[in-house]
Amino acid sequence: MPTYRLDISYDGSTFFGYGIQDNVRTVQGELEKALNPHTGGANTVVAGRTDKGVHASAQVVSFESGELDLARVKRSVNKQLWPDIAVKSLIEVDAGFHARFSATGRAYLYRILNSPVHDPLRAARVWHIANELDVGLMNDAMSHLVGEHDFAALCRRYKDRSTVRTLEWARWNRSDDEISLSIGAEAFCHQMVRSTVALAVTIGSNDIDPDAVPDILASRDRSLTNGVAPAHALTLVAVAYGAPLPRPTWMQGVD
Amino acid sequence: MPTYRLDISYDGSTFFGYGIQDNVRTVQGELEKALNPHTGGANTVVAGRTDKGVHASAQVVSFESGELDLARVKRSVNKQLWPDIAVKSLIEVDAGFHARFSATGRAYLYRILNSPVHDPLRAARVWHIANELDVGLMNDAMSHLVGEHDFAALCRRYKDRSTVRTLEWARWNRSDDEISLSIGAEAFCHQMVRSTVALAVTIGSNDIDPDAVPDILASRDRSLTNGVAPAHALTLVAVAYGAPLPRPTWMQGVD
Repeated sequence: MPTYRLDISYDGSTFFGYGIQDNVRTVQGELEKALNPHTGGANTVVAGRTDKGVHASAQVVSFESGELDLARVKRSVNKQLWPDIAVKSLIEVDAGFHARFSATGRAYLYRILNSPVHDPLRAARVWHIANELDVGLMNDAMSHLVGEHDFAALCRRYKDRSTVRTLEWARWNRSDDEISLSIGAEAFCHQMVRSTVALAVTIGSNDIDPDAVPDILASRDRSLTNGVAPAHALTLVAVAYGAPLPRPTWMQGVD
Repeated sequence: MPTYRLDISYDGSTFFGYGIQDNVRTVQGELEKALNPHTGGANTVVAGRTDKGVHASAQVVSFESGELDLARVKRSVNKQLWPDIAVKSLIEVDAGFHARFSATGRAYLYRILNSPVHDPLRAARVWHIANELDVGLMNDAMSHLVGEHDFAALCRRYKDRSTVRTLEWARWNRSDDEISLSIGAEAFCHQMVRSTVALAVTIGSNDIDPDAVPDILASRDRSLTNGVAPAHALTLVAVAYGAPLPRPTWMQGVD
């Protein structure tokens, strides 16, 4: 059977996460429901399962199915899923392509509004923090995370699953009243980005020294890292297959 | 009594417009409810009454009241109105300042996503139009509107009220897959911006020639201008008092 690749985006605020579950509205559940009349019930796989509330501007899904009229299926699925999910493209790919296992990189963006007053027009997409954060300290902390480490202190634990990952980059950038984290890796463990954000905010608030980060990682103790940042400000922005992950323009020339 | 100026922003999607009405949630209603414990029931006036669904990133409100602890009132009102309304500043101003009658300019931004596929992450802020619009034609049309005209063909009519206005600028700009209208005037008549957008889209779709605009204006016939564009993509972005309206950066050097 042919293999297909879907590139989608979604607003995570109306879903109970990506992965299908009984009795709640999920991205995968809605997507498969919309595809079923065309595929006869194909199972889909996804590059990065996002948690409840997390958005994606560039998620990748694959599935096997009999021959499809690609333009017609894309149009039909978009009509059914508007406005919360969009299919940006639907193409046939080489047999063996697997949205999750073929992926060689994932990138996320986390947005913080760092301003004394909140902003109603960005409230759904940013975490509002009123006290001024020190971006320099936050980036000092990030430099201790880049590379291969055991990220147990920053991940939800599952028995027998490794928490060793290689972080390719993690960098905070200030633009006007927003500071945002761009972070990329071959793969992340569960809650790793939001735990990294929570730790960075603690450091940016002068509550932990950035040079304590290596000891925190070595401890593998999650109680040291201040929980997880809110989901609604996190977006999956890129998935790579073979080619390097695209970095934001402002990161070019930055380590 | 002292006069106060409030600078606020709001997400219009959860309100039945700016102006207070019985039994529905309005921006003015919520704002006065939050101010009342401090002012004892001051009446507020506003620079630009926005319709149901329209947002503001820079709205101005004024009122008279006894002496206020400005920092305390600002904090209290923000706490009560989060997340849908934000008070960016609250200051005492010269007697005679009136948010509406002292205003010398208003500027709006209207956003269109001009792309074959919709975008869930911008759906609440843009009007999605799939067929490709010709921005050159749309700007040709705008150039016929700039200056002093009777805008009856683009405004909701009220008996005995003039529809003569002076449009300072109106310009569409394309940036990636978005095209947005920046438009400024001393004052607008009711529904003028959204009618202008609807007319521009008709022209950008090659359904009306831009050079027909002077005749459409002269007709004073609203049935020629294709209704109003959706409210959710419109934002009040600036109000000027004396000083010229700020124009967007990309408009500098443009007529």
